Formats: sequence, C-alpha cells, structure tokens
Amino acid sequence: SRSINLAVIPGDGIGQEVVTEGLKVLSAVLPQDVKLETKEFDFGARRYHATGETLTDADLDALKQHDAILLGAIGDPSVPSGVLERGFLLKLRFAFDHHVNLRPSKLLPGVATPLAGQPEIDFLVVREGTEGPYTGNGGTIRKGTEHEVATEVSVNTAFGVERVVRDAFARAQARPRKKLTLVHKNNVLTFAGHLWTNVFHKVAAEFPEVTTDYIHVDAATIYLVTDPARFDVIVTDNLFGDIITDLAAAVSGGIGVAASGNINPSGAFPSMFEPVHGSAPDIAGQGKADPSATVLSVALLLRHLGHEAEAARIEEAVSADLAERGGLPARSTSEIGDALAVRVAG
Amino acid sequence: SRSINLAVIPGDGIGQEVVTEGLKVLSAVLPQDVKLETKEFDFGARRYHATGETLTDADLDALKQHDAILLGAIGDPSVPSGVLERGFLLKLRFAFDHHVNLRPSKLLPGVATPLAGQPEIDFLVVREGTEGPYTGNGGTIRKGTEHEVATEVSVNTAFGVERVVRDAFARAQARPRKKLTLVHKNNVLTFAGHLWTNVFHKVAAEFPEVTTDYIHVDAATIYLVTDPARFDVIVTDNLFGDIITDLAAAVSGGIGVAASGNINPSGAFPSMFEPVHGSAPDIAGQGKADPSATVLSVALLLRHLGHEAEAARIEEAVSADLAERGGLPARSTSEIGDALAVRVAG
Ligand SMILES: CC(C)[C@H](C(=O)O)[C@@H](O)C(=O)O
Ligand SMILES: CC(C)[C@H](C(=O)O)[C@@H](O)C(=O)O
Repeated sequence: SRSINLAVIPGDGIGQEVVTEGLKVLSAVLPQDVKLETKEFDFGARRYHATGETLTDADLDALKQHDAILLGAIGDPSVPSGVLERGFLLKLRFAFDHHVNLRPSKLLPGVATPLAGQPEIDFLVVREGTEGPYTGNGGTIRKGTEHEVATEVSVNTAFGVERVVRDAFARAQARPRKKLTLVHKNNVLTFAGHLWTNVFHKVAAEFPEVTTDYIHVDAATIYLVTDPARFDVIVTDNLFGDIITDLAAAVSGGIGVAASGNINPSGAFPSMFEPVHGSAPDIAGQGKADPSATVLSVALLLRHLGHEAEAARIEEAVSADLAERGGLPARSTSEIGDALAVRVAG
Repeated sequence: SRSINLAVIPGDGIGQEVVTEGLKVLSAVLPQDVKLETKEFDFGARRYHATGETLTDADLDALKQHDAILLGAIGDPSVPSGVLERGFLLKLRFAFDHHVNLRPSKLLPGVATPLAGQPEIDFLVVREGTEGPYTGNGGTIRKGTEHEVATEVSVNTAFGVERVVRDAFARAQARPRKKLTLVHKNNVLTFAGHLWTNVFHKVAAEFPEVTTDYIHVDAATIYLVTDPARFDVIVTDNLFGDIITDLAAAVSGGIGVAASGNINPSGAFPSMFEPVHGSAPDIAGQGKADPSATVLSVALLLRHLGHEAEAARIEEAVSADLAERGGLPARSTSEIGDALAVRVAG
C-alpha cells in the first residue's frame, strides 16, 4: 500500500528512546511516494499512575484504526508485577488476536555470542500468542492462608493450535532448509501434548516438502546452546515460546538485537511489532539502549505490510552496522539510529 | 546407618550400563562395616510390553522397604510418549512425595562447556517435584475433532510451595554464598506467581542471612548462558525446574555429568537418585555412555543417607577423572567406572 498509518506506543523506560530511532529509520527507508502517518499513544506506567487505566475499550478502538502498531517497551518497577503485563501487553495480544508471535534469531557476522566457537544461528520461532498458560484462566482460593491453592490453566484448542501450526509450516516451506520442529513437553503435559502433536502431524501431510521433528522443551534448551544450527523454524506454545526465545536471543547476540512481531495474519486487527527486550529502567534516559532490536522490529513490520525491499534494506543496514561496531558499545542510542538511517537511505 | 538397603532400577537403554558402574563405585567407596544390600527391579519398557504394567501398588510396597532407590533411565521409543513418564517416573515421584528435586550444577575443571570463556558455575536448583503442571490435572474434550479443547492445570498449594521453599532456604543458608533466587513467571502466571512470591518472602524472614532475588524464568535462561556465576541456589516450580536444569546441565558439562535426587526429606518414603539424562536408546549397549552422572547421583544418595565423607570422595574422584580425561571420550562406560572405583577406594 502507498501509505502507512502507524500507531506508536513508546511506553516505559528505554521505550521512548528506541522507538524514536525506529521511526527515524522507518522514515529514511520509505520511498517518497509512501505516506507515513503516525499517532502516538501514551500507554504504560505514567498513564496507569495518573488514571488507573492500562488499556480501555476506547483505546482498542483507536488502535484498531491503524495499519500496524510499533511498541517500545511496557513495564516499570513502580507498578506491581502483572498489572501492565496482563492489563496491557497480554490484553492487547488477546484483543487483537495476535496468535502468531514471530521471533527470528540470527547471529549476524561480528556479533558477540556467549557460545564458544561462532556457531551458525538462523532460525525462526513461531510462538502461539493467544492460548496456553497465558489465557489468565485459573484462580486462587483461601488466599494468604496456609491452605491457599492457586491454579493456572493452560487452554489449548484445535482451532488455535492448527492455525499457528499451519502458519509455521508455510513459513518453513518458504525457507531454503524447509524444516519445522515442534517443541512441547508431550510426555508430561499429555492432554495438550497430544493435541499439539496430532495437529502437527495432520498439517504436515499438507506440506510434504517440509522435514519435521519433535523435541521436548527441556531438551530444546540444550540444543539451543550445543547445536543451534539444527533449528530452522520452531513452532511452540505460548509459554515454551516465551522461555526459549529469550534463550534464543541470548545466544544470537542478546536482547539488544532481538525483534518480534505479534501478528494477526487475517488482517482483522493491526499487528504489533516490538523488541523482545523490556523497558530496562536501570539504563533509561541515558542514551545507552541499543535501538537495533526496535529497528529490526520495524523491518518485520514493513515485511508484514508488503514492503519487502525496504525490510531487507533495514536488515542489511543493521547487519552492516553491527559488523562494523565489533561488539563495542561506542555510540549512543541516537548515534546508532542516525547511522542506520543513513545506511537505509542509501 | 551401618547398612544400606538399596532398590536398584536399571531401566531402559543405557540405564543398565550406567547403573552397573554406579554400583561398582558405591561398593568401592563404602567402608567395610557398612553392609550394602541391593535388590534389582525390572521396571521400564520390557516389563510394560510383557505385562502392560508400569508401576503397581505391589511394586510401590516393595520399593518402600528400601533406604533409597537408584535409577538408571526409563523410556523407549517403542512405548508411546507419556506412558512410562506418567505411569512410572512421575507416578513414583508423586507416590513417594518426592517434593524436593535436587539438581546441582557445577562446572568442573577441565570439563568442556558450550559457553565461551570458562565461567564459574556452581549452583544448585531445588525444583518442586509434586505440584505445578505435573499433577496430571486437566483433560480433553472432543478429542480428535476440530473442536478439541485440551487443558493442563498447574496446581500450587501453600503447603507444597512452603515446604520446598523452606528446604531451599536451608540449603542456601548452608552454602558459603547464602543466596537464593526464586525463578517463576509471576508477571503472567499471576495466581501461582503470587503464591510463590508471597511464600518466598514469608519464609525469607526466617533466614535473615540469606540474600534473595527474583528472576522470571525467561530471563533466567539468559543469565544461565551470560552470567551463570550469579546463581547460588535457585528454587522453582516443577516445570520451570525441568526446563532450566536441562539448560544448566548443558552449560556445566552436559547431561553426561548431571546428577539428581528426588528427595522426600521426611524420610516417610525412600528418596530416589538418578542421572538427569534419559535412556539414550541410540547409544545403548555400546559401552559409550558416560556413567559419571549416575556416579554423582550415588554421591547425592550417600549424602542423603548421612555418608558425607563417602559422598565427597566420589565427587572428588569424578572431578579428578574428568580433569584427566580432557573432554576426550577415550574410555568405555565400564573403563570409566573402573577408574572411579579405584580412585574412591584409594
Ligand atoms: C512481559 C511479558 C508479558 C512477555 C511475555 O511473557 O510474553 C515478555 O516476556 C515477552 O516475551 O514478550
Ligand atoms: C522424563 C520426564 C518425565 C522428566 C521430567 O519432566 O521431570 C525428565 O525430563 C526429568 O527432568 O527428570
């Protein structure tokens, strides 16, 4: 499309700093004839403290008017754990049915990894985004007493599992290696495990060119540090995906370069793009945050909206910048953003 | 005590091979006046195929007559996923109330790690063993249809959380660094998260010398590869413990050296000791398995039964053997066992 109507949520902590650079690079990469309109939303800790609100129905209506959403980070130590996570981040993922949570991991040349050697890492995690233990199902009885019981219910539906598994197969099919790994814990979580495993095998029949395998989530963490090259595309549930993508980010250059997309492939609601890192209040306001993860999230956003060439240009720019940087945090957030903007502008 | 009445479950795959070496070292380390009696139980895939049984009430009664249990490994590709895990391994942990699942991680000198540098790793994970998503609570409706719904219920009780948290505090208190980290996901799993967090703070008041902190499970996987030295003792729920201890094993020398104890601290039922690795059917019967994890599990067993000096001797022997080995798999399973037996007897 020849215009992009973008909702921007800087959020808390370093969110504002990295989003500024993301937008700088976005403006620089877009051709003259693509009109970019942005509208900023003041969600997060400030708003919560001022009004007690995290995300209202009116907010959702306003966000819905956009082609996509760019988010910096949400979360602050002044807000009790869970309030903004459940009240904003997860509420938005659920309200906009962001069932495909895309998290690519690629170790770029010259980027430091905690792993010995310099292993090949280039895989994509497709994390389910609207089911599993994230539904908020569960409860507490006898709270605060010695007889308290707290439950968390992981909810898994054939509908929900099948759509994300099919999406992952399609993405694996489109990659050179065409390999898809299901990560679960089907030997212990047998109810959900059987559903995931059966659906996975059923959908596999539609993609005969895709090689498949299965790994328990515990073993997957081993392979992520001993043999990450074995992975091409991974599909997994919401919680397992949360855990292994942080590990994946750590081994492939750190959360400073880990991008993600919360995708609604149907387009019924705007998709949201955000760095995997959080608001990092300890370094906020100091110009120390690496905006690369946000800039790479902008690339995912552009690809999602059909601007493949621009997405690729951003990824090349980040890769070139990181290779030059040599792992040294020599520049400020905005200096890195400036350098990337120059690169993508050509 | 001056006698050890041990139940031995070699199990499947490499289980028999590694248990043989574990017993060899156990016999060698025990003083003359400690009488060792062992009784072997034929649980696992063979028994399941022959009789359809995994673990009967009579089996549990028979096991109960022992001071402790040594297990090799259970699991075979010929048995559907979940049958032996739920029908044997987890059934035993639940029946004998093995609520403290101890998993030490120590990177021994000379042992290869996938991490760059040679980081200091010496921590202990205390994994809850009888609650969380492991209870088997949950179910499936409309199985096999497009309307299937499968649930898994994580059950957490104040009783269950408090006893394992207190056990972990006591273990942290007894270590030089005296630091305990709670690993959970209390920003998303808010019902269970609040219970764990509140109990953790309550019990902390009884251990003023112990430094505490809290890390989300996803972030914990990052620290395990970027800064494992920050951990001393970790306490966590059953599923998070399963996942992070495989990763912990991977970074601290691999599952070839990762030991574990499924402990019932009350002594009401025998505790069970087993290597973290599985039955590894691909290398079974070839004398290739490293028995060190089983031998280190024997050390945990001896410590649990009050034979601290012998436990320490085994740990020193394994450490010395690994340092000499230089990471080369030059010897067979029994050659390693022989070498360790000589060292501990020495
Ligand atoms: C902040 C939290 C709700 C979130 C999650 O658990 O999904 C984060 O860890 C992530 O991975 O995006
Ligand atoms: C085999 C399986 C049931 C078991 C678990 O999940 O606890 C294993 O992974 C372990 O860590 O001991």
